[in-house]
Amino acid sequence: MKIGFIGLGNMGSPMASNLLKAGHELVIFDLVQASVHKLLQQYPGKVSAAPSPKLLAQGGLDLIITMLPAAQHVKSVYLGGEGLLASITPKTVLIDSSTIDPQTAREVASLAAAQGNVMLDAPVSGGTGGAEAGTLTFMVGGAESDFHQWKDVFTKMGKNIVYCGASGNGQVAKVANNMLLGISMIGTAEAMSLGVSLGMDPKILAGIINTSSGRCWSSDTYNPYPGVLENVPSSRGYTGGFGADLMLKDLGLAAEAAKSAKQPIPLGSLAQQMYQTFSLQGHGGLDFSAIINLFRKK
Amino acid sequence: MKIGFIGLGNMGSPMASNLLKAGHELVIFDLVQASVHKLLQQYPGKVSAAPSPKLLAQGGLDLIITMLPAAQHVKSVYLGGEGLLASITPKTVLIDSSTIDPQTAREVASLAAAQGNVMLDAPVSGGTGGAEAGTLTFMVGGAESDFHQWKDVFTKMGKNIVYCGASGNGQVAKVANNMLLGISMIGTAEAMSLGVSLGMDPKILAGIINTSSGRCWSSDTYNPYPGVLENVPSSRGYTGGFGADLMLKDLGLAAEAAKSAKQPIPLGSLAQQMYQTFSLQGHGGLDFSAIINLFRKK
Amino acid sequence: MKIGFIGLGNMGSPMASNLLKAGHELVIFDLVQASVHKLLQQYPGKVSAAPSPKLLAQGGLDLIITMLPAAQHVKSVYLGGEGLLASITPKTVLIDSSTIDPQTAREVASLAAAQGNVMLDAPVSGGTGGAEAGTLTFMVGGAESDFHQWKDVFTKMGKNIVYCGASGNGQVAKVANNMLLGISMIGTAEAMSLGVSLGMDPKILAGIINTSSGRCWSSDTYNPYPGVLENVPSSRGYTGGFGADLMLKDLGLAAEAAKSAKQPIPLGSLAQQMYQTFSLQGHGGLDFSAIINLFRKK
Amino acid sequence: MKIGFIGLGNMGSPMASNLLKAGHELVIFDLVQASVHKLLQQYPGKVSAAPSPKLLAQGGLDLIITMLPAAQHVKSVYLGGEGLLASITPKTVLIDSSTIDPQTAREVASLAAAQGNVMLDAPVSGGTGGAEAGTLTFMVGGAESDFHQWKDVFTKMGKNIVYCGASGNGQVAKVANNMLLGISMIGTAEAMSLGVSLGMDPKILAGIINTSSGRCWSSDTYNPYPGVLENVPSSRGYTGGFGADLMLKDLGLAAEAAKSAKQPIPLGSLAQQMYQTFSLQGHGGLDFSAIINLFRKK
Repeated sequence: MKIGFIGLGNMGSPMASNLLKAGHELVIFDLVQASVHKLLQQYPGKVSAAPSPKLLAQGGLDLIITMLPAAQHVKSVYLGGEGLLASITPKTVLIDSSTIDPQTAREVASLAAAQGNVMLDAPVSGGTGGAEAGTLTFMVGGAESDFHQWKDVFTKMGKNIVYCGASGNGQVAKVANNMLLGISMIGTAEAMSLGVSLGMDPKILAGIINTSSGRCWSSDTYNPYPGVLENVPSSRGYTGGFGADLMLKDLGLAAEAAKSAKQPIPLGSLAQQMYQTFSLQGHGGLDFSAIINLFRKK
Repeated sequence: MKIGFIGLGNMGSPMASNLLKAGHELVIFDLVQASVHKLLQQYPGKVSAAPSPKLLAQGGLDLIITMLPAAQHVKSVYLGGEGLLASITPKTVLIDSSTIDPQTAREVASLAAAQGNVMLDAPVSGGTGGAEAGTLTFMVGGAESDFHQWKDVFTKMGKNIVYCGASGNGQVAKVANNMLLGISMIGTAEAMSLGVSLGMDPKILAGIINTSSGRCWSSDTYNPYPGVLENVPSSRGYTGGFGADLMLKDLGLAAEAAKSAKQPIPLGSLAQQMYQTFSLQGHGGLDFSAIINLFRKK
Repeated sequence: MKIGFIGLGNMGSPMASNLLKAGHELVIFDLVQASVHKLLQQYPGKVSAAPSPKLLAQGGLDLIITMLPAAQHVKSVYLGGEGLLASITPKTVLIDSSTIDPQTAREVASLAAAQGNVMLDAPVSGGTGGAEAGTLTFMVGGAESDFHQWKDVFTKMGKNIVYCGASGNGQVAKVANNMLLGISMIGTAEAMSLGVSLGMDPKILAGIINTSSGRCWSSDTYNPYPGVLENVPSSRGYTGGFGADLMLKDLGLAAEAAKSAKQPIPLGSLAQQMYQTFSLQGHGGLDFSAIINLFRKK
Repeated sequence: MKIGFIGLGNMGSPMASNLLKAGHELVIFDLVQASVHKLLQQYPGKVSAAPSPKLLAQGGLDLIITMLPAAQHVKSVYLGGEGLLASITPKTVLIDSSTIDPQTAREVASLAAAQGNVMLDAPVSGGTGGAEAGTLTFMVGGAESDFHQWKDVFTKMGKNIVYCGASGNGQVAKVANNMLLGISMIGTAEAMSLGVSLGMDPKILAGIINTSSGRCWSSDTYNPYPGVLENVPSSRGYTGGFGADLMLKDLGLAAEAAKSAKQPIPLGSLAQQMYQTFSLQGHGGLDFSAIINLFRKK
């Protein structure tokens, strides 16, 4: 099976590496030449570089995977005369693992289907750590039979491969989950800050919340209060992890999707504004749990 | 051991019953005579009624437990010439299981301590179901030695008995946890509504959230979207459970505590306003997960 | 001077009428034939209908004014092979009075400029009442010399013609003003509801606010509390005026523009969510001051 | 007429001075001796100091005016064995100009009435500048006949003397107005920041808003964007004016009053949280228009 891989950023590079480690041969493309060269050197004889998405598409590949920063890049890589859709053969299957708005995902998939190409949207969660360890979660939208046929490829890069329903639903699941994550994280940050301000020990408070109805991933697995958990960003100066500006991006996607669906999201929207404020104050590069610093007393 | 019990509402009555079932004898008081009579009839020979808190206090009891609706009732029962503090003996231990603001809890406990009486604040979670089944969680504030000495009594009424630190910290833990619960519930309601609006099946969406970073008690144990879980209020017309107006009360306590601590709680505060709006629209008697109806498309 | 006019909805029709009353001859286009016929009948000999924007554009007009519902319609009318830009002559000046996002306004104006056509963005405020009376406010973006050259045309349709700066700034001014309007309206609704709940007479309260630091257009000119002012929507069942769903649209434009500018708008964003909720509850057709009913006690 | 004056802070001192300048003789009290001495020196022979509120109350005064920081001080000065109510004669009229919650104002006035003393609540707006210039606005609650009988005294200290209705309504008017002021100020700050981020000149934008539906006191009289208006805090580094922490106090009073009235105030409540955040970040001492710095790009 010949696989193309476009988009070798922090997430895409380790994903491509895991496919190579699993024995697949890849044709790769990225605008950043250094990313391309690194893989060429690491896996000599197993990787070749394409000079453009168009030429990559003309290579008669079985599968092309894309991992791009935002919807505008997906449109640019897939559509138009220089895009993938214009040059692939009917047998080429397309998997887009970018996190983008569901509307765009559905538009592109529908154009692919119109010309007879199978396409799956498959955004991931798990961060760069999960990408490197090959333990990502893939949320996959598209026809169920296509999902089952291509599930094996995902298992080379991830651990939980979840079918979410028709085209675009992978993006929907991601945006809904991450919006709730953003809300829970701020909620946990508020609850921890409030309790400690009122005199409680943060570890005892977290212990109570984690066995009570306030329990959530943000409290029991990724607590934002320094010192409560080891090996999480809050205990190493909010470095590593999932950046505040990435959470801001996902909350922006949620707001956009909610607007198009005429669906109110009052807390999701306020969470977006708080991350926007935090970013404006210069902290967008910290882990997203650092949002606690927007309002924690020192 | 002779125990007094004041406050026989929806929570207090089953708590007192569980003490009686465990073999304790009780002296009880409530303004509602029907509640008093019911216990007298159910446990003949083991319960006696006191005509007032003052006379109950004069009975030389080892322990008095109070379970009252709000801080004003706690002040009225404990303080002043007709209150408990004025009439108890030095050996009487006081346990207040009401959910009130930490400041009031600390004031009353400090007055008790000043006259030599041990007092613990011990608010509960688990609802009327937990009160009846004897599976409540008690969050206890006070001296650690006193906690250990009286822990046994709590086990007759609850399952998880958690020490939270110094006086008032039981209330702090409860208020922090329940604020986070209110936020998570609305967050889950927004995420579920958004996902379904955008075309996802609610059970699949909940399944994904529950194994991802959006996971929380409100999604995996008490999901507000109808049909996702069996035996929760959302699947029986939002009846039973924990009333929206009780959540509103707890969010009000959080707001008050946050104001006194000069601690911002942006999401907690917006959650309070949303429950206030929901209550104003006439739905305060529904389970608190019904908040999803404030903004769910039908 | 030959003028083309595209978009004959609730706002466009009276605007076109006022140009006709002022003696101009018009070539008109709208997808709704009834709107076209109505003007043809009312002003025989002074109006002619074009079968498409393209054919209208080919008529060698001096000026084309467009008044369309949203950015997608503006793109569709201006761009592509069937659009205005592809068929107008270099001397044709373009004025877009639609309310759309500043980005799209700038994109289209920049394409026009690239082919040598002058374009102004000129969104209005004043509602259908102002459109009929010819008292609209025009907020105009574009080159200052072009503004002065074409100012006279605006005065046939409006009273205040304000120059806002470079291209797109008309839209910026409108979106900023209307976001503040949405916030002030909800703020006034909250303040009036709170005061009345606490026992004040609404007229006395409004009188005090209107001479104090809370004074705003929403309180002194368009008060949302029934009975405070005569001849405003709140005193006639919230009919007429500026619809809640139009305010929702403008707040959505503000949110989009803020996101693109990385600018937090916490209150603007919450206002948007409240109007979205109000719309979901079925009240989007009422005047926007009816938002007070979301939370007013009756 | 003999007048007592209690509370000689930033507001009380100039108010007392204006009464003295108008020819009244005063008996004064404040815990801060320096404030007392200053007046004694400035107006020799016209002022005497009382060693306690109780002794001041026993002086057989016609009128006592109080100007205190918060409800707890009002309770402490008026109630209990050492308080004013216990020692005044029936003819003494009481005016409280403190800004406190309406509930407390009504409680104290009702206790005064029960023993036959007339009491008016009369909070002010206008800041220290207005107090010094004698141009304060007084919002007065109480019996209308009492208002008219004592209106003259207010005119020595203020310019607009407004009758707000029954007891407590002065406080209601103040809290409602100032909540709307806080909302409008943040709304103006958001609108100005958004417009400028998108490329507009701040003076042009303010000019448009001030003649449009977004017009409000915060935009046309006290614009928070530096350089738009002269002689306002935003054009002198946000010094002087009305402190952010005072706005925070008033928003806290609004939240408390709203909670007691079961009245939702979503924007008012978010404004409170934003000022709390601003204060936590160390800026509570700046003028309240400095809130724009929470989210303005530099």
